[in-house]
Amino acid sequence: MNEQLLKMTDWLKTTDLDITFLLNPNNIAYYTGYHSEPHERILALILFKDHAPLLFTPGLEAEDAKNSDWSYDVVGYLDTENPWDKIKAEIEKRTKNSTHWAVEKDFITLDRFEALTTSFPQANFETDITHFVQQQKLIKTADEIAIMKEAGQWADFAFEVGFKAIKEGKMEQEIVAEIEYELKKKGIAKMSFDTICLAGDHAASPHGDPGARKIVKDELILFDLGVVHNCYTSDATRTVAYGEPSSEAKKIYQIVLEAQLAAMAAIKPGVKASELDKIARNIITEAGYGPYFNHRLGHGLGSTVHEFPSITETNDMVIQEGMCFSIEPGIYVPGVAGVRIEDCVYVTKNGCESFTRTPKELIYI
Amino acid sequence: MNEQLLKMTDWLKTTDLDITFLLNPNNIAYYTGYHSEPHERILALILFKDHAPLLFTPGLEAEDAKNSDWSYDVVGYLDTENPWDKIKAEIEKRTKNSTHWAVEKDFITLDRFEALTTSFPQANFETDITHFVQQQKLIKTADEIAIMKEAGQWADFAFEVGFKAIKEGKMEQEIVAEIEYELKKKGIAKMSFDTICLAGDHAASPHGDPGARKIVKDELILFDLGVVHNCYTSDATRTVAYGEPSSEAKKIYQIVLEAQLAAMAAIKPGVKASELDKIARNIITEAGYGPYFNHRLGHGLGSTVHEFPSITETNDMVIQEGMCFSIEPGIYVPGVAGVRIEDCVYVTKNGCESFTRTPKELIYI
Repeated sequence: MNEQLLKMTDWLKTTDLDITFLLNPNNIAYYTGYHSEPHERILALILFKDHAPLLFTPGLEAEDAKNSDWSYDVVGYLDTENPWDKIKAEIEKRTKNSTHWAVEKDFITLDRFEALTTSFPQANFETDITHFVQQQKLIKTADEIAIMKEAGQWADFAFEVGFKAIKEGKMEQEIVAEIEYELKKKGIAKMSFDTICLAGDHAASPHGDPGARKIVKDELILFDLGVVHNCYTSDATRTVAYGEPSSEAKKIYQIVLEAQLAAMAAIKPGVKASELDKIARNIITEAGYGPYFNHRLGHGLGSTVHEFPSITETNDMVIQEGMCFSIEPGIYVPGVAGVRIEDCVYVTKNGCESFTRTPKELIYI
Repeated sequence: MNEQLLKMTDWLKTTDLDITFLLNPNNIAYYTGYHSEPHERILALILFKDHAPLLFTPGLEAEDAKNSDWSYDVVGYLDTENPWDKIKAEIEKRTKNSTHWAVEKDFITLDRFEALTTSFPQANFETDITHFVQQQKLIKTADEIAIMKEAGQWADFAFEVGFKAIKEGKMEQEIVAEIEYELKKKGIAKMSFDTICLAGDHAASPHGDPGARKIVKDELILFDLGVVHNCYTSDATRTVAYGEPSSEAKKIYQIVLEAQLAAMAAIKPGVKASELDKIARNIITEAGYGPYFNHRLGHGLGSTVHEFPSITETNDMVIQEGMCFSIEPGIYVPGVAGVRIEDCVYVTKNGCESFTRTPKELIYI
């Protein structure tokens, strides 16, 4: 039983919960070490108060799950079987008195919830386990941070490939293709999200997609990327100069850099998420670009690329050692330039360490 | 208003539903032409009985949505606003009497459902719109089929790249990297699912992931791939010979091919999904490989890569003109070989047409 599941089961013993029923594949990977995307089929981790846990999987995956690091029960179901009937039978083999249940209210769909409540009409399903899982995932273990450091190194490698790929006349989507090609060849099968490479004024669109826009000289080029490595994600952004960008573009870059460095320098246990956002936002606002920084400062990450803590103006969550999140101020002036600089960090006893090391002083290609 | 939404709104008028509340981004794209993945934020399409529809989006996306083909209201919300309060206010601007609601029970999460029922405590939320949407999506329009044909052509192109990439000593993941690289350069930003290239006995694992396994001579190599093109998917599988595979591997190939062609030949309006599955399964069973064909014959596809109709032994759904689905029998003998041959088709008045054209007679590389 990994450290994470041990902590969860210890906690469950202090509650009146008989069954904790998890469906989110990311949470299941977190507690079991077994990662799989079941699509429309059911993958569930069922935790009992007084019995060993059960991993319930699509039939095709049961062998893989048994051969994984997971050393407790695995039960598979066939496409021709009703999974809810089988889940009910497996639970009733272990306990007849499952009165109090917890489910992930932020993940379970209504039809699945209705299937469960129909199977167990006597049970109380009021408890949402979401908050406990989110809180537990907030603080990363040393093992998790070690994996996330590796994921960060892959992001640095991806920047290297991307910067080298810049060439006049090349399309943004070609540069994305080259980055992902080099990563895939090295065994990185998945990116954390669709890799972003946006040139010139295209980077000023907050949700721009890389496309047939061609690279021209004397523009800024924005890269936002990350990989999935051993079930953990990285995420980082760099904006580089190709040739000699306009003086306004360069000015914007320096403001974003100042904001990013100031927020990074302020990270330590005890500071509030909202304070970090304000430090960066004030610098950008005082420079006159406040309205062009139209998103939060950052987001937590771990086994997913967006999790807690959310680094917003309104979130007064107190930062603690072991939290991992992004610091990514940006300024997007339509028709002029888009700049974002992002690192993800883990909080240490006295400050923080970044998962990515690619330099942040404006790089000229 | 596109043909799809027109059909939905016409139908809504025949019901007592006041509000239909959609959250699935694929369904929203289907009815609005606007596609976006909101991650943890809220993207909702709200249909009213007697008012124009409303697209509710994350603030950052509101401009994109307004600039899209969607010509009705768009309302965005900021990260600092409570989306549920804003949704309630927007609905109450339009109607005070939203007594009967429909939601997607297969998509809405319990926490979001609770947010809605708390906002509208008087309303009845019993109606599940899932079935209506699934039924409507089952039958593709001519426009949808035209896009899916193009998506199929991209899959054929991907096979071409993949077959050319085969070389002794190369890793499976390198071949995947080359396929996706060539597609990305041409503007195909997304695959329908993680591209599969599995060599030799590795292809006999039903859920094998391409990895560092190297290509060696005299083996079969399985490719399963598809692209997302204008919000529609393709999906196809070919198994090719590199050198001279064993006689058992070649025998298995011929059985799968026979099963695939027989099922394809039987497709026409009026046949049952289960009959198609049985045609393929009987051929494989009679050849002695029944236990090694351990999945359904096929699945529907369209704006998602897995939708209705499911082509299983137990699904007696009657096939109709305009349905689109895969026919993909396979035989997986551990330690020997894994073979799967898959085309996706659309059903015509008298038979079917395949979206993919890559030859199915065993190709020797």
